Amino acid sequence: MATGINRRWMLKQRPQRLPGPECYEWREEPVPRAGENEVVIRNLYMSLDPAIRGWMDDRPSYLPPIPLGGVMRATTIGKVLESRCAGFERGDIVQGLNGWEDYSVSQGRGFTARVPVHPGLPLTDFLSVLGTTGLSAYFGLLEVARPRAGETVLVTGAAGAVGSIVGQLARRAGCRAVGVAGSDEKCAWLERECGYDATINYRTRANDLVAAIRAACPDGVDIQFENVGGGILEAGLECLNKRGRVLLCGLISQYNAGGDVRGIRNLWQLIAKTARIEGFLVRDWLDRWAEAAAELAKLVAAGELHHREHIERGLEHAPETFLRLFDGNHQGKLIVDIAGNEA
Amino acid sequence: MATGINRRWMLKQRPQRLPGPECYEWREEPVPRAGENEVVIRNLYMSLDPAIRGWMDDRPSYLPPIPLGGVMRATTIGKVLESRCAGFERGDIVQGLNGWEDYSVSQGRGFTARVPVHPGLPLTDFLSVLGTTGLSAYFGLLEVARPRAGETVLVTGAAGAVGSIVGQLARRAGCRAVGVAGSDEKCAWLERECGYDATINYRTRANDLVAAIRAACPDGVDIQFENVGGGILEAGLECLNKRGRVLLCGLISQYNAGGDVRGIRNLWQLIAKTARIEGFLVRDWLDRWAEAAAELAKLVAAGELHHREHIERGLEHAPETFLRLFDGNHQGKLIVDIAGNEA
Repeated sequence: MATGINRRWMLKQRPQRLPGPECYEWREEPVPRAGENEVVIRNLYMSLDPAIRGWMDDRPSYLPPIPLGGVMRATTIGKVLESRCAGFERGDIVQGLNGWEDYSVSQGRGFTARVPVHPGLPLTDFLSVLGTTGLSAYFGLLEVARPRAGETVLVTGAAGAVGSIVGQLARRAGCRAVGVAGSDEKCAWLERECGYDATINYRTRANDLVAAIRAACPDGVDIQFENVGGGILEAGLECLNKRGRVLLCGLISQYNAGGDVRGIRNLWQLIAKTARIEGFLVRDWLDRWAEAAAELAKLVAAGELHHREHIERGLEHAPETFLRLFDGNHQGKLIVDIAGNEA
Repeated sequence: MATGINRRWMLKQRPQRLPGPECYEWREEPVPRAGENEVVIRNLYMSLDPAIRGWMDDRPSYLPPIPLGGVMRATTIGKVLESRCAGFERGDIVQGLNGWEDYSVSQGRGFTARVPVHPGLPLTDFLSVLGTTGLSAYFGLLEVARPRAGETVLVTGAAGAVGSIVGQLARRAGCRAVGVAGSDEKCAWLERECGYDATINYRTRANDLVAAIRAACPDGVDIQFENVGGGILEAGLECLNKRGRVLLCGLISQYNAGGDVRGIRNLWQLIAKTARIEGFLVRDWLDRWAEAAAELAKLVAAGELHHREHIERGLEHAPETFLRLFDGNHQGKLIVDIAGNEA
């Protein structure tokens, strides 16, 4: 598709709410060359994650904002086209934090790493169940929230790329897994494929969410794996048990709220239950990613860990595809196929 | 004062916001007699704490609500008048969760315990620096938030009965202690008497609280000991360091807000900093109260731990006195002297 040119999506203006087409600029530039200690990567697939929306805002966070006029940021999987960097050779398959573009230049440090070979697993798995979303489920649940057998784990955004894995890992840890998702189809998939013990459609139960959670969690909630925030987080806090843990992985309901972020009004529940809310970033566990991915890969290869990917073809459609994250109109990990048959 | 009668404040109706006189009913009843396994306590002093406001609401919490028509609940110190309970004798000085009344009947279990003898320390110390407020500071800071030397501890409600002790314990742990309080007089007292390194008057700095905290905490905030909630909590979250800990001890700004509780809108900060908010109840540490009180008593006796008490005379004024907690019109631990010279 793109041979002599590098197609790129640049950040043109910062979104107030949902990032519309006015936020992006399409550019076609020459394919870059590698400088000293650099590699040029032909991006094959790119991961669209809620975190990207945060990087579009102009506020300090765990990563600097995407600069205005700079290329949009995403995790990609690609093939090394040219290397002037020790440890990387032409043809290597690598993943890293790169751009919404055909070709990225990287120093080969930090977030660029060779993708380990797992025969039989498709490359895209390394952007989903074996990528940051699968690893968020793994470290967030197992290392931070630390479930004990017999506990109840409530997962919000349960049909998302993180949530669908969390429930399965919770079940493997001997817990009751209860998922909150946005459609009956998603709920059915969670129960049928992912083994969730119970699910709640937050759209049809919006008016009695606390009652729905109480009914699905008769022994209360020990761990809330939170991907959504807002009213769903508040409802969960009401149902927490003594010493409950809320693992705060994401707040997707808030990212496009502009100034109208829904505040959490019942933090008193944390006192009444001596419970806690703990923020989580998978980046903090970088030194153990390979180990965890290998463990998850075994489960995937054995057919014991289910996930689904929603792959949209075409870098040119990336801005519209990105919006699917926020209206729930996708099933599984959202990925853009940049290179098509070239891969 | 009260000899043959038991003067009592009963809960007549639940408050919507600030508890006005319409919430209480004054009764005069005969002095109760001890049933089997009971003691009758002549209450001498009673502690007025923000927690009481929560018990007036009709919602489940760590203690059941005060029933409508039931006596108002408070921690008291009193003298055993009659005992039919093993382990207690007439004349024993005891503390426990009793009522806004001259005489309380107790089973002598749980929250009724003999007050240890510390010659030279006034009885009221056992409702303040050696009572639940001092112990909240002790366990919340030292056992839950766990300060390390060199860290910065931001204390909200710093001039309160809990906060004033927290800063001093933080300093003893080698930390920088920064207090947020509601008047210049309180700030001056915190710096002069309690050794706070810096203070912020949240009333005069309401419009630039984040800037004020940043200026007072040049290395950021590692521990936020939260007694207030609302905008002060939000401002502190902006200033948290990586892996910061918010010890949630109280939310006094919210207790009288009725339906207008100010929601916390920046929980994203917990993710960006992989920080946590942890709820705290001193009740959870009951089995170590005596040990901690003994340690604090040594510091008090040595003049190394400062506190102040605001003692108002007269059970009959308790409803008005209670309101001082919420308008800041008190200096130090708020205590009602029930028995006057009788003590």
